[in-house]
Amino acid sequence: MNFKLKGVEIIKMEAKLINEFKSGDSIEGFFLIKGVSVKTSSNNKTYLDITFADKSGEINGKKWDSSSEDEELYTENKLVKLRGNISEWQGRLQLKVLKIRPSEDEDNVNIEEFVMSAPEKSEEMYNELIKYIDRISNKDIKGITSHIINESKDKLLYYPAAKSNHHSIKSGLLYHVITMLRSGDKLSDIYTHLNKDLLFAGIILHDMSKLDEMSASELGIVTEYTIEGQLLGHIIQGIKRIEKVAELVGADKEVAMLLEHMILSHHYEPEFGSPKRPMIPEAELLHYLDIIDSRMFDMAKALETVDSNEFSDRIWVLHNRQVYKTNIK
Amino acid sequence: MNFKLKGVEIIKMEAKLINEFKSGDSIEGFFLIKGVSVKTSSNNKTYLDITFADKSGEINGKKWDSSSEDEELYTENKLVKLRGNISEWQGRLQLKVLKIRPSEDEDNVNIEEFVMSAPEKSEEMYNELIKYIDRISNKDIKGITSHIINESKDKLLYYPAAKSNHHSIKSGLLYHVITMLRSGDKLSDIYTHLNKDLLFAGIILHDMSKLDEMSASELGIVTEYTIEGQLLGHIIQGIKRIEKVAELVGADKEVAMLLEHMILSHHYEPEFGSPKRPMIPEAELLHYLDIIDSRMFDMAKALETVDSNEFSDRIWVLHNRQVYKTNIK
Amino acid sequence: MNFKLKGVEIIKMEAKLINEFKSGDSIEGFFLIKGVSVKTSSNNKTYLDITFADKSGEINGKKWDSSSEDEELYTENKLVKLRGNISEWQGRLQLKVLKIRPSEDEDNVNIEEFVMSAPEKSEEMYNELIKYIDRISNKDIKGITSHIINESKDKLLYYPAAKSNHHSIKSGLLYHVITMLRSGDKLSDIYTHLNKDLLFAGIILHDMSKLDEMSASELGIVTEYTIEGQLLGHIIQGIKRIEKVAELVGADKEVAMLLEHMILSHHYEPEFGSPKRPMIPEAELLHYLDIIDSRMFDMAKALETVDSNEFSDRIWVLHNRQVYKTNIK
Amino acid sequence: MNFKLKGVEIIKMEAKLINEFKSGDSIEGFFLIKGVSVKTSSNNKTYLDITFADKSGEINGKKWDSSSEDEELYTENKLVKLRGNISEWQGRLQLKVLKIRPSEDEDNVNIEEFVMSAPEKSEEMYNELIKYIDRISNKDIKGITSHIINESKDKLLYYPAAKSNHHSIKSGLLYHVITMLRSGDKLSDIYTHLNKDLLFAGIILHDMSKLDEMSASELGIVTEYTIEGQLLGHIIQGIKRIEKVAELVGADKEVAMLLEHMILSHHYEPEFGSPKRPMIPEAELLHYLDIIDSRMFDMAKALETVDSNEFSDRIWVLHNRQVYKTNIK
Amino acid sequence: MNFKLKGVEIIKMEAKLINEFKSGDSIEGFFLIKGVSVKTSSNNKTYLDITFADKSGEINGKKWDSSSEDEELYTENKLVKLRGNISEWQGRLQLKVLKIRPSEDEDNVNIEEFVMSAPEKSEEMYNELIKYIDRISNKDIKGITSHIINESKDKLLYYPAAKSNHHSIKSGLLYHVITMLRSGDKLSDIYTHLNKDLLFAGIILHDMSKLDEMSASELGIVTEYTIEGQLLGHIIQGIKRIEKVAELVGADKEVAMLLEHMILSHHYEPEFGSPKRPMIPEAELLHYLDIIDSRMFDMAKALETVDSNEFSDRIWVLHNRQVYKTNIK
Amino acid sequence: MNFKLKGVEIIKMEAKLINEFKSGDSIEGFFLIKGVSVKTSSNNKTYLDITFADKSGEINGKKWDSSSEDEELYTENKLVKLRGNISEWQGRLQLKVLKIRPSEDEDNVNIEEFVMSAPEKSEEMYNELIKYIDRISNKDIKGITSHIINESKDKLLYYPAAKSNHHSIKSGLLYHVITMLRSGDKLSDIYTHLNKDLLFAGIILHDMSKLDEMSASELGIVTEYTIEGQLLGHIIQGIKRIEKVAELVGADKEVAMLLEHMILSHHYEPEFGSPKRPMIPEAELLHYLDIIDSRMFDMAKALETVDSNEFSDRIWVLHNRQVYKTNIK
Repeated sequence: MNFKLKGVEIIKMEAKLINEFKSGDSIEGFFLIKGVSVKTSSNNKTYLDITFADKSGEINGKKWDSSSEDEELYTENKLVKLRGNISEWQGRLQLKVLKIRPSEDEDNVNIEEFVMSAPEKSEEMYNELIKYIDRISNKDIKGITSHIINESKDKLLYYPAAKSNHHSIKSGLLYHVITMLRSGDKLSDIYTHLNKDLLFAGIILHDMSKLDEMSASELGIVTEYTIEGQLLGHIIQGIKRIEKVAELVGADKEVAMLLEHMILSHHYEPEFGSPKRPMIPEAELLHYLDIIDSRMFDMAKALETVDSNEFSDRIWVLHNRQVYKTNIK
Repeated sequence: MNFKLKGVEIIKMEAKLINEFKSGDSIEGFFLIKGVSVKTSSNNKTYLDITFADKSGEINGKKWDSSSEDEELYTENKLVKLRGNISEWQGRLQLKVLKIRPSEDEDNVNIEEFVMSAPEKSEEMYNELIKYIDRISNKDIKGITSHIINESKDKLLYYPAAKSNHHSIKSGLLYHVITMLRSGDKLSDIYTHLNKDLLFAGIILHDMSKLDEMSASELGIVTEYTIEGQLLGHIIQGIKRIEKVAELVGADKEVAMLLEHMILSHHYEPEFGSPKRPMIPEAELLHYLDIIDSRMFDMAKALETVDSNEFSDRIWVLHNRQVYKTNIK
Repeated sequence: MNFKLKGVEIIKMEAKLINEFKSGDSIEGFFLIKGVSVKTSSNNKTYLDITFADKSGEINGKKWDSSSEDEELYTENKLVKLRGNISEWQGRLQLKVLKIRPSEDEDNVNIEEFVMSAPEKSEEMYNELIKYIDRISNKDIKGITSHIINESKDKLLYYPAAKSNHHSIKSGLLYHVITMLRSGDKLSDIYTHLNKDLLFAGIILHDMSKLDEMSASELGIVTEYTIEGQLLGHIIQGIKRIEKVAELVGADKEVAMLLEHMILSHHYEPEFGSPKRPMIPEAELLHYLDIIDSRMFDMAKALETVDSNEFSDRIWVLHNRQVYKTNIK
Repeated sequence: MNFKLKGVEIIKMEAKLINEFKSGDSIEGFFLIKGVSVKTSSNNKTYLDITFADKSGEINGKKWDSSSEDEELYTENKLVKLRGNISEWQGRLQLKVLKIRPSEDEDNVNIEEFVMSAPEKSEEMYNELIKYIDRISNKDIKGITSHIINESKDKLLYYPAAKSNHHSIKSGLLYHVITMLRSGDKLSDIYTHLNKDLLFAGIILHDMSKLDEMSASELGIVTEYTIEGQLLGHIIQGIKRIEKVAELVGADKEVAMLLEHMILSHHYEPEFGSPKRPMIPEAELLHYLDIIDSRMFDMAKALETVDSNEFSDRIWVLHNRQVYKTNIK
Repeated sequence: MNFKLKGVEIIKMEAKLINEFKSGDSIEGFFLIKGVSVKTSSNNKTYLDITFADKSGEINGKKWDSSSEDEELYTENKLVKLRGNISEWQGRLQLKVLKIRPSEDEDNVNIEEFVMSAPEKSEEMYNELIKYIDRISNKDIKGITSHIINESKDKLLYYPAAKSNHHSIKSGLLYHVITMLRSGDKLSDIYTHLNKDLLFAGIILHDMSKLDEMSASELGIVTEYTIEGQLLGHIIQGIKRIEKVAELVGADKEVAMLLEHMILSHHYEPEFGSPKRPMIPEAELLHYLDIIDSRMFDMAKALETVDSNEFSDRIWVLHNRQVYKTNIK
Repeated sequence: MNFKLKGVEIIKMEAKLINEFKSGDSIEGFFLIKGVSVKTSSNNKTYLDITFADKSGEINGKKWDSSSEDEELYTENKLVKLRGNISEWQGRLQLKVLKIRPSEDEDNVNIEEFVMSAPEKSEEMYNELIKYIDRISNKDIKGITSHIINESKDKLLYYPAAKSNHHSIKSGLLYHVITMLRSGDKLSDIYTHLNKDLLFAGIILHDMSKLDEMSASELGIVTEYTIEGQLLGHIIQGIKRIEKVAELVGADKEVAMLLEHMILSHHYEPEFGSPKRPMIPEAELLHYLDIIDSRMFDMAKALETVDSNEFSDRIWVLHNRQVYKTNIK
C-alpha cells in the first residue's frame, strides 16, 4: 500500500492493524488518539506520550522533541495519520512516531472505524430493547422501565459498560443489556416460575446509572468518573432514579422496592458493592446473567489473538487467569 | 413484702429484680411479657412459653397446662403479676409460673417501669437534639436535617437503636444520637478542620431510617423488620429519604450527595453494609463515633453485673469477647 | 375421611400431607420411614425416634415405650400407616405416634408416592439425555460420554444429586443434568463461539461420579458417602473415570484432558473443591449453569410454602438467606 | 528573587516550595537531602540519585556525572543549595540538578526549617504531657508512666510516630500522644464509667517503645528498624519495659498487667499485631482514639493540596482511598 | 465381677471402661468426678449434673433427687463408686446414677488410675529433659533454660498442655516437650545448619508459661485460665519470664531476644497469637515440630476407638476433619 | 587472574562469582545464559537482554547494539565467556557486556559447573531412594512406587522441584524427596503408630508428576509448564498415574486410593491445590515434612549471603519475610 504523507510519496510501509504489530515493524496508517500527556525526557526536552488506538486495539507511542504546536494539535479523541517504528520495551510493544499529522477531510476516513464498537448496530439494538419493554405486562414495571429508557436513549446509544474491563467499547452497555435480555428470555422459558416482567426490567435497569456514574465521549470512551459516581456509585444512583421515576409515574411501592432490590443486589457480594444479596429468584438470575455475559465477552476477546493449543496472557478481569484455546473440531 | 394475689394473702415471697434471681428462689412481683408462644409438652398438654422482663433484664418462663383462656390473657407487651420458682436448665435460669394474673388498674404499677430505657428523659434529649440542629449554619444542611427530625419525632421518642445488641432499649436510638453529638462536638474542637454542620447532620441522620427498617412498639421493643427493611436496609432507605427531602426543601445537590455519602459509608466495611468507605473526614469520624458509642454502651452493660477482678460471659456483639472488671482505684 | 387401622373404625382423623401439619392436629395416614434410632427416655424406657416423610416433606416423630419387636418392624425406607398428634417443640413440629403398623399389600399404596421425585419421568429424561449425546459431533467426546452414561444408566435413573441441599430427591441428578442441558443448548445459541460438544459433554459428566461418591437407595435417598467418596470426592473420581474410559474408547488425549479440566474446575473456587479455575469458556459456562440450576431449584422449593409478601426461613444452602415471595402480577 | 550560587549572579530562577513545583519549572533554593545513592547510568557514568525535601514535601532528583568528591559532599541529612529543572517521568515529578553546593554558615538557613514538624512546639507539648501525668491519681500508674516518660524525654522531643505513614514528621510521636490525650480527656467526660488514670497512662505509653523499635535522626527521620524492633516489635518491647519499670517502682502487679494489656491490645486485630483484643473499656477507647488521630491527620494532609470539588490521589495508608474536598460553607 | 455397694451384694453388673459403654448397659465401678453442678428439674427437685471420667474417657451423668448432703459429698476431683444405666440422648450417651458413694480407703483404688496420663513416667521424662539441657553448650541459653525449668519442676510434673484439645492429660505438657525434643534432635541431624542450643531451648520454653496461664489440679485437670492468662496469654507471659531470668543469670541480650522471638513466633499466624512470624530457621522448625506433635497425638487418639476402614467423628481440633483408619498391612 | 578473550591478553579483570559482584566491579569469566530476549533501545537499536548465571546466582545483563549474528549465537542454556561492568539500577545489580564470545572446547569449562545443583550426587541419591523402596514391605505399595520410579528415573536424575522457589536447582526434586525420606524415617521411629510403607511411598510419589507438569532442560531449568500441567496440575496428574500403574501391577484398590489421597491432600489447603485435607496420619505428616524441607532449604539459601546480625531481603516464597542471621555460638 502506497500513500502520501504531507505530499511525500511513501513506499512499502505497512498498513497493519494494531493487533498485528510486531517488534521491528515499520508501520503507517490512521489511528485515534485515546490519551496524551506532555512529558520531559532525560535530555530535558518535551515529548508527547500518546495512546494510539484503532478498532483492533491500543498501543503506547512517543512523539519525541515535541513543540507547543504539537501539544495543541494532538489531543484526545483526535484522528491522526502517522508513520512509525515498533519496538519492545519491558515486554510490551511501543510505537516511535517518525511522522504525524492530523487527519483531514480529504483523507476520507471515518473516526467511527477507529473505535472498538459493539458488533451490532446501536439503533437496531435499541429497537430490540423497546420490544422487550413492550412485552412487559405489569403496567408499573413497564412505566418505570420505559420512562428511564426514554430519558437515557441518547447516551445509551454510545456508552460503554465500563471504563476498562468487559464491554468497554462503544455501545457496550446497550450490547451487554441486549445479550442479557436474550439469555434471560430463553432461561425464563426453562425456569417457568420466574416473573418475566421483573426479570426484563431488572436486566434493562441494572447498569443504567452507569450513564451517571461515568462521563464518556460519544466515541464510547470513558474519560472519568463523576463526583457522585465516586461518592455513591451507580447502584445507589440507580436506586435513587427508580424511586424518583416510580413516584413520577405513580407506580406501586412494592414494584419500586423490588426493582430497587434487584439493582441493589445484582453485584451479589458486599465487597463488590451489594450490601444485600438477592432475595427473589429474578434478582438471583439477574446476577448470573450479568456475570455470564461479561465472562463470555472477556474470554472471547482474550482468545481472539491466541493460537490453538496456546494460552492467553493472564487477564486481570478474569481473576488473573490465562485462557486456553482448544483445537477441538 | 406481703401482698395479695387474687385475694389470697401471700407471705414471704421475694420481690426481686430479674437480674437478682438465683436458682432456687421463690419469687413474686410484676413483669412484662415480651414474647409468648403456645407449645405442647411431652405429656400432650399445652403450655405457654413466655419471656418475662423488667427494667433489669429478661427471663424465660413456663406456664404449664395452659388453657385457651390463658392464651388470650397473656400476650405480648402485657403487664402481669406472678408467683414462681427459679431453677437452672442448661446453664440458664428459668421461671416456673405458679400463679399469674394480668395487672389491674388498682395495682398502681406503670408499664414504663418495666422496660429498659435510656438513662435520660426522651423529651430532654429531643430538646438537646434540636439545639444541635440550631447550631448548623449551612441552611441546606439544616433544612434537610430539621425536616427529617420533625417527621420522625413521634417514633424517635421511644424507638430503640436495634432489635437486640447495642442500645436495644426504649429511646435507645435517641440516646445513641445524643451521646454521639456530644462526642462529635468535643472532638471537632480538637480536629478543627472538620465541618461541624456536616458532622452534626451526619450523626443525626445516620440511623434515622431504622424507624422505617424495623417495627417497634411504644415500649421500644422491636417486633420485626419491615419488608423494605429486609430488602433494602436502613442505609438505602435513609439515602432515599434524604434525596426526597432535599428536593422538597430545595437543597443544593452537593449537600444532599454528601449527606447521602455519609449515610452510605458509615458502616465502613462492605460486609457490614457500606459499599463505599468514607471519602470525607466527617464521614470517617462519624463511623468511629458510632462504633465508640456502641462499644462503650455494650461494655458498660456487660460489666454491670460483674464483680471486680472477674470476667463477664462472652458477649457476641463484642466479637464474642469477655470483658474484665478492674479493681483500680 | 374414615378408614380402618387394624380393623378398628376410626373417625374424623385428618389425612393431611406433612407440609400441611399444624401444632394441635390429630392426623393419620401412610408415611415413609426415612430414618430411625432406638433411644432411652428419662424414665429409662426405650422409644423409637423416627423421621417420617411423604412427598411433601419430613417430620420427626416419637414412638414411646417401644418393644424389640417394634425395632425390627420399623426400619429405614419402610412404609407405615399411623395415627398421631402434632405438637411443637423448640420451634419445630413433632409427631407423637399413637398407633402404627407396617403398610400391607391390601393397602394398595405405592411407596413411590411417598418420595420426593423429580417432576419429570426418569425414562423420558434419560431418553432426552441420549438425544443430546446424539447431537455431539466430535466422535471422541461422544464416545467417552456415551460409554459413561451407558455404564451409569441404572443408578442414574433414581440417584439424587446430593445428600441434602439442591436436588436431593429421587432422580434429582438426572433432572439437574437435563435442565442444565436445556439451558446450555439455549445459551450456546447466543454465545456462538462456544463448542457445543464440549459443553454438552461437560454438563452430562460434571456430577456423574456422585454415583460413586455416595450410596443411595432406589428411593433416591443417600445413606452415606463411600470411603473413596470421602477420601477423594466425586471430582477426582470423575477425572479418573474419564481417563479410563478415554483410553478404552481410544479417544484423543486432548479431548480427555479438556473434559477432565471441565470436571476439575466446575466448582470454581478452591475452597469448594476446584483446585483450578475454568480456563476455557465452556468450563466457565458449565459452572454458572450448574449454580443457576441449583439456585432456581432451591429458591422455588423455599417459596413453595411461603405466602405472598412473606419471607421464607433462613435457608442454609442459599448462604443462609431468606427468600421473599412477591405479589407482582 | 535574585541570589548568588558560588559567586555567580542568578536571575529569575524561582524559589518555590517543593509542593508548588510543576513540570517545566526552573527552580533554585535550599533543600534537605533525605536519602542518596550512587548509581551507574546506561552510558556507564556514575550519578547521584537523591531525595530532596523541604518542609512542604519531597522530590526525587538526579545529579548526573557525579564525582567521588560529590559522593562525600552530598550525604543524608545534609542541607544543600541547588538550581535545577523539574520534569515529569512516569507520572511523577523529577528534579534534574544543574548546580549544587552544601549550605554554608553565611547562608543563614536553619535546617529545622526544612523538616516537616508537628505544628506545636515540642517543649510545650512535653509540658502539657507532664500535666496529664500530674492528673493521674493512682500512684502506681503515675509512677510507671512518669518513670518511662522521664527516661524517654530526649528522644520523645523529636521522634516521629512512624517511618512513613501517619505522623512521620519531627516530634510526630509526641504530637500524636498529646492530641489523643486531649480527645481522651474530653470523651471520658462523656463516658464517665471510664478510669481516667488508666486511659491517660495507656495513651501516653501505647507507642512509647517506638523509640526502641526504630532508629531516628534528630530531624525526626527514621533511618531503620532496630534488630529487636524487627524480631519483637514495639508492642512487645513496650510490655517488657512496663514490666521492668513496674518492678523498679514497686507497683501493684494488677496495674502493670492492665497497662500491658492495653499496650498488647491497642492494634486491635491480630493481623495488625495485637494477639489479644481489648477486654477493658479503657483499652477499647485507646484503640479508637489512636485510629481517629491517625486518620484525621492523614486525611487533613491528603486534602492540603487538593482543590474544592476534587479528589486526592489514592492514599495507601487510607486503605488506598481517594479523599474528597467539599465546598460546603 | 461381684462386689458390695454399701453392704449390699450386687450381682452381674458390668465393670466396663467408659469408652466401652453402650446404650442399654447396666454398669458399676469407680469413676472420677471431673465436674459437677446442682440443677433443678422440671418437677422442681434438685439433681446433680456430673461429668464422670476414668482413664478411657468421660461421660455425662445425672443423680436425680439430690440432697444437700449429696452436694457436699460429690465434688470435683472426688473418686466415687457407682451403679447406673447408660442411655442415649440427642446422639450422646448418658449415665443415670442408681447408687453412688464416695470411694473409701478400704476400696484400695488409686485416683491416679482414673486420670488420662502421658504414656511415660513424669520423673523419667523430666530426667530426659535435663539431659537435653545438659547438651546445650551456649552458657547463656543453658542458664536461662535451666533456671526456668528448675522453677517450674513441681507443676511441670503434672500439668497438661491444654484445657481441652491436644495433650490435655496429666503430664501432657512434659510429654509434649519431650517428644518434640526427640524429633528436634533427629531433624537437626538432617538440617545441620541449625543451632541445636537455640532449638532445644526454644522447644523446652515454648509453652512453659502455660503453667502461669492456666490453673490445673495435681490430676492434670485445668480448672480455669488465670486473669493474666486471659489478658496477656502464655506467649507474652513467657517472654516476660525469659526477660527476667535473662537479667537474673546475666545472659547476653541477643540470646534473650532470640529466645523471646522464638516464643513470640511459635504460633506462626497472627490470628493464633503470633504477631511476628519466625525469622530464624530454629523458630520455623520449632513451629512445625509443635504442630506435628499435636496432630500426631490428636489423630492417634481419634483412631483409638475406630475400626479399620471406618472414619472417626468430626474432630474440632483437627479442623473438624474425620480421620480414617486404614487396614494396610 | 589473567586470561585471553578472543586472543587478547586481559589484565587485572576480576573472576568473581556472581554472588560476590558489587556495583563498580569490572569482571570477566564464564557464565551460563539462562534467558535472553531481543529488545529495541530508545535510540532505536536492538540489544540483547540476558540473564547470566553461575552456580552462585544470577544477574541481568545488557549486550548493547546487538547484531542478528549475536541473536543466533547467544541463546538459552549456552555457556559464554564475557567481560563487563557491574552497576546498580533501581536497587539491583546489572551487568553491561563489554566483550562476549561463546565458550569453546579448548576453554575446558564444564557447563555442569555453572548450574546450581543439589549438594549430593544424583546417582547416589537415586540409589538411596531405591533402598527406601526396598524397605517397603506391602507388595502393592512397593509395586506401584517401584514402577513409577523406574519410569521416571531419567528425568528424576536432573529435574528441579520447581520453576522458581524452593529446590529450583538441578536434581532438586530428587534431593527434596531424599531429605524428606530421611526425616520421615526418623520421625516414624518416634511416632510409631504410623505405617512406614505408606509414608515412604507418599513421600516418594508426592511430587513425581512435576516431571509431567513442567518441561525442564537437562540442566534442571524449567522452560515452561505443559498444557496438561496448567489445565490439571501435578496433583491430578499424579493421581491419574497412580491409578493407571495400580491397575497395571494389579494392586489392591484400597492401596491405590490411599496413595491417591496422600497426593491429593499434601498441599493441605484448598487454595494451594488440595481439595481434601489429610484424613490419615501419614498424609498429615507428609504435608509437614514437605513444608519443613522447603522452608529449611529456602531459609538456608537466604542466609548464605547475609552477615551475622543482619537480615536478608524480603523473600517472597517465605511469605515475604526477612530472615535473620544470629551470631550465637
